[in-house]
Amino acid sequence: MEKFVIIGGVAAGPKTACHLKRLKPEAQVTVIDQDSLISYGGCGIPYFISGDVADADALRSTSFDVVRDEAFFSGAKGVDVKASTRAISIDRQLKTVQLENLLTNTTESISYDKLVLATGSKPTIPPIYGTDLKGVFTVSSLKSAIALQQYLKEGDAEKAVIIGGGAIGIEMAEGLEDMWGLETTIVEFMPQLLPSFIEKPIERMLSYHLQQNNIRIHTAESVSGLEGDENGIVARVVTNKQVLDAQLIIIATGVRPRDELARDAGLLVSPRGGIIVNNRLQTSDPNIYAAGDCIETTHLVTGKKTFAPLGSLSNRQGRVVADNLAGNFSHFDGVVGSFIMKAFDVCVGTTGLTLATAKAEGFDADMCITVQSDRAHFIPGHKDIVLAMIFDRKSRRVLGLQGFSAMGNSVLARINAAAALLSQRAVIEDFSVLEMAYAPPFSTALDALNVVANVAENKVSGRFRSLPLEDFITWMEAPASHPERLVVDVRSVFDSRHEVERFGDLWLPLPYPEVRARYQELPRDRELILVCGAGTRSYEVQVFLDSVGYTRNLVLGGSLMALRPMGIEWLSNDD
Amino acid sequence: MEKFVIIGGVAAGPKTACHLKRLKPEAQVTVIDQDSLISYGGCGIPYFISGDVADADALRSTSFDVVRDEAFFSGAKGVDVKASTRAISIDRQLKTVQLENLLTNTTESISYDKLVLATGSKPTIPPIYGTDLKGVFTVSSLKSAIALQQYLKEGDAEKAVIIGGGAIGIEMAEGLEDMWGLETTIVEFMPQLLPSFIEKPIERMLSYHLQQNNIRIHTAESVSGLEGDENGIVARVVTNKQVLDAQLIIIATGVRPRDELARDAGLLVSPRGGIIVNNRLQTSDPNIYAAGDCIETTHLVTGKKTFAPLGSLSNRQGRVVADNLAGNFSHFDGVVGSFIMKAFDVCVGTTGLTLATAKAEGFDADMCITVQSDRAHFIPGHKDIVLAMIFDRKSRRVLGLQGFSAMGNSVLARINAAAALLSQRAVIEDFSVLEMAYAPPFSTALDALNVVANVAENKVSGRFRSLPLEDFITWMEAPASHPERLVVDVRSVFDSRHEVERFGDLWLPLPYPEVRARYQELPRDRELILVCGAGTRSYEVQVFLDSVGYTRNLVLGGSLMALRPMGIEWLSNDD
Repeated sequence: MEKFVIIGGVAAGPKTACHLKRLKPEAQVTVIDQDSLISYGGCGIPYFISGDVADADALRSTSFDVVRDEAFFSGAKGVDVKASTRAISIDRQLKTVQLENLLTNTTESISYDKLVLATGSKPTIPPIYGTDLKGVFTVSSLKSAIALQQYLKEGDAEKAVIIGGGAIGIEMAEGLEDMWGLETTIVEFMPQLLPSFIEKPIERMLSYHLQQNNIRIHTAESVSGLEGDENGIVARVVTNKQVLDAQLIIIATGVRPRDELARDAGLLVSPRGGIIVNNRLQTSDPNIYAAGDCIETTHLVTGKKTFAPLGSLSNRQGRVVADNLAGNFSHFDGVVGSFIMKAFDVCVGTTGLTLATAKAEGFDADMCITVQSDRAHFIPGHKDIVLAMIFDRKSRRVLGLQGFSAMGNSVLARINAAAALLSQRAVIEDFSVLEMAYAPPFSTALDALNVVANVAENKVSGRFRSLPLEDFITWMEAPASHPERLVVDVRSVFDSRHEVERFGDLWLPLPYPEVRARYQELPRDRELILVCGAGTRSYEVQVFLDSVGYTRNLVLGGSLMALRPMGIEWLSNDD
Repeated sequence: MEKFVIIGGVAAGPKTACHLKRLKPEAQVTVIDQDSLISYGGCGIPYFISGDVADADALRSTSFDVVRDEAFFSGAKGVDVKASTRAISIDRQLKTVQLENLLTNTTESISYDKLVLATGSKPTIPPIYGTDLKGVFTVSSLKSAIALQQYLKEGDAEKAVIIGGGAIGIEMAEGLEDMWGLETTIVEFMPQLLPSFIEKPIERMLSYHLQQNNIRIHTAESVSGLEGDENGIVARVVTNKQVLDAQLIIIATGVRPRDELARDAGLLVSPRGGIIVNNRLQTSDPNIYAAGDCIETTHLVTGKKTFAPLGSLSNRQGRVVADNLAGNFSHFDGVVGSFIMKAFDVCVGTTGLTLATAKAEGFDADMCITVQSDRAHFIPGHKDIVLAMIFDRKSRRVLGLQGFSAMGNSVLARINAAAALLSQRAVIEDFSVLEMAYAPPFSTALDALNVVANVAENKVSGRFRSLPLEDFITWMEAPASHPERLVVDVRSVFDSRHEVERFGDLWLPLPYPEVRARYQELPRDRELILVCGAGTRSYEVQVFLDSVGYTRNLVLGGSLMALRPMGIEWLSNDD
């Protein structure tokens, strides 16, 4: 009987084991994990802390409410699980793994015909002092999450600092503030939240919403160390800018592959971290496969190697490993980087590359941003959906898409469609004509995704020239920096014009329906910045002005509706 | 100055006109329409009748609340609109169109350099008597919808019959029942609602939900005629089975292309109806283009010609026509058939082909159906999402996807992703590995779309053998028809077993975790029908039973959770 040993029992490991038993019911499959808790939904940890998930067992249960413990794997799946057992070393010649039982401190050896490494990742701990104080947590395992919950229940923490403004940090902030009432601050080393995931304008929207929900955000600030009280409990966070009181610290500065076992066994491991595998997820030893957070994978947009530690990918990879172990050809070619998250009442999603990453990768990259209605505008309750598309000017290939909207599945619907096309190396035009399902309660006749592609096409064809939102915001904060510029506001309704009265001569109203009759009132010696609600009217005015010789004009990309969710005060009302 | 004339002012026409003016601001663009109301969202008509949309003007307004009338087109867009004007004939030699002003009954001639036909579609009126009675409506134009609303307001109709169980019929039924309190019956000639759009199991779910909302549904029933009262108002519907009282009739039996003008001008028109165009949407006369409901297009899955009258397609096509008129190469290659609709509190979406259509087109087609959670099962409020995947057994190409869920965007997110892959001729494996964005509040680690693809792959690889839901239902209604069959229920919890007690010896409980220990209790002389909640456990049991020699077994496709939304009473509770 063929013997399969799988090291790692959280996501990729159990998936491999169960799928393999379905393909080869006669196989002997053993899963090893150093933890006592196995096969849990790690991505659910923030929802366990926030109280949305009632207890830790819910994260370990099947959809039919049975806890996935050793007895379940043995009885229901026919998979042998050795929990609380650490794999110490691999002998590739003898094809054995040396194991240590962490409860009894005894060692044993297990032999394999095929071995799978699903050793996952471990949190990156920044090189600062005081990380060993009581009250300092990571949330990289269910066990650490349970310890954190215990601390919250028993302790009297009033203020929390989260080090790291990535997805986990933001999700944890919501839980701490919302469920536990802690005054919560996120400290992020980079100049924005979710760095290398989203563009600055979208980050402004997310940040503003978090701040509206009492989350304090300090970006471009680095933590030097943590100071404790007389009981060894953390009390203060020292940054390069200030000292923050905090009785609870969560370190969420990312994870790195747990690849030491593979490295020690002489398998090829990337210098950047991550076990090197081929597209059948086979390591440099043909008898050893690897899957999940511990491997290096390929970014399908750049074609380069990357590290993509996501539970959803671990599950896909586990299936591929099992297929190959069972003799079925199956391959995992890489990732496009699909991502979505909830933050209080909004959500942010992305797939592919950001503009900065795309440029760094050598693309002739550009982006556009649109604010559209998620449903037909005549359907009550419709909401805005913000989409940013990143594309290559030369090849017209789409490189990334990002979305922001009120909580719901409207961003998901666009990100998933975009991910599907990115995986096929689609160009802008493929997005323009993509046949998104339409009915008024779900979308618009031209879906928001089609529209952002149309704008990208206009831009890449040189028909649409825009001033980036960030440049506009910077200018508005210091108008004298560009005295040649003049805002031409082509919105139709005048009620909210008082908002912009403060800008005086800088802000000229010229309602869209009157442009063709009145354009000669515009000065010829200024650079006209055309603004409206969503950008459609500004673009039409740009085309018209160009045709009558007023070619020194730019449309505000994303237009005024993109500024509103950023909480920019001087534009608080709609037209 | 180049002169462009566009005949048709609802969707494709105005889109062509406006996009063309943006590309060629100097062009002279004229839109002709026989109606006085132009440029409206026809797909919003049911929501106007249901009262969701406050008034007809909302359907004619821009997202910034300006009514798109002739003055708007002229002032804001620089497009000349001749409403209430019918195009009578085209002289292709002289390049003129003969027009009749319907208000003044005068005629004139307009010349063109390039002509666009966007003449739309017209309702199919079935060959029955009495369709000219008062109280009989179609809802093919905003004008007819306004007349219907007027009739509802003024009349005292208590019962309505909708002839045709397609999307419009169902949407109208909701409006009539919900807003106007009419006792509403849908009569459909075919054996199911939405024929050639969805599979029977999904149709059962939709039908049951409609019936729960007081809609009466008569399928496989044909209307012979309509009878009126002494005032010429409709009073009764005579079908091949009965006579139904009704003071309001809506005929919603589909539309056909309005292609007479093109035909009379000697342009190539399909024998099935629809102006023949190339992929630049150019007709057989290079100076004449056509777009919208009046054209024949290509189904990208079958490669064959089809008719796809949808507002969303009209908008895409209008853009393509304008691009080509402006000298930019742009093409519309065809449709994959994406569709979504709301019905009370549920929604149904589809893309691609149904199983029956796929078989009729010569594919070696098969399907599978799954019921999954739309979000992580530990997130409160998660709902079921039903997906059916249609695929070709030989090539493994995916041919279609259908979804059913509670109202929201969860089906949209899967249909759009599937449409994107269908447009690229993807195979099952592309769906298995498709990187759907994951976070617990949005989806599951393996998205429902990945799961249905995995099931399809298991089926096509011969690893998964199932009994179709329809066959199971038929058998359950007459168990004696297959005395050799035995249901083996591998659900874990016994509380709800009383539901199936009535089946006595036909229904054997054998909890999943006990199968490996107790399988020898199963009879060897019966065909075992394995059932559970979602199908996962049944499948694992199938694999195990096969491995121990009990190979005469089938899994109930979609399993018991698929029966529940059909309202099948003997399975009303979950486990």
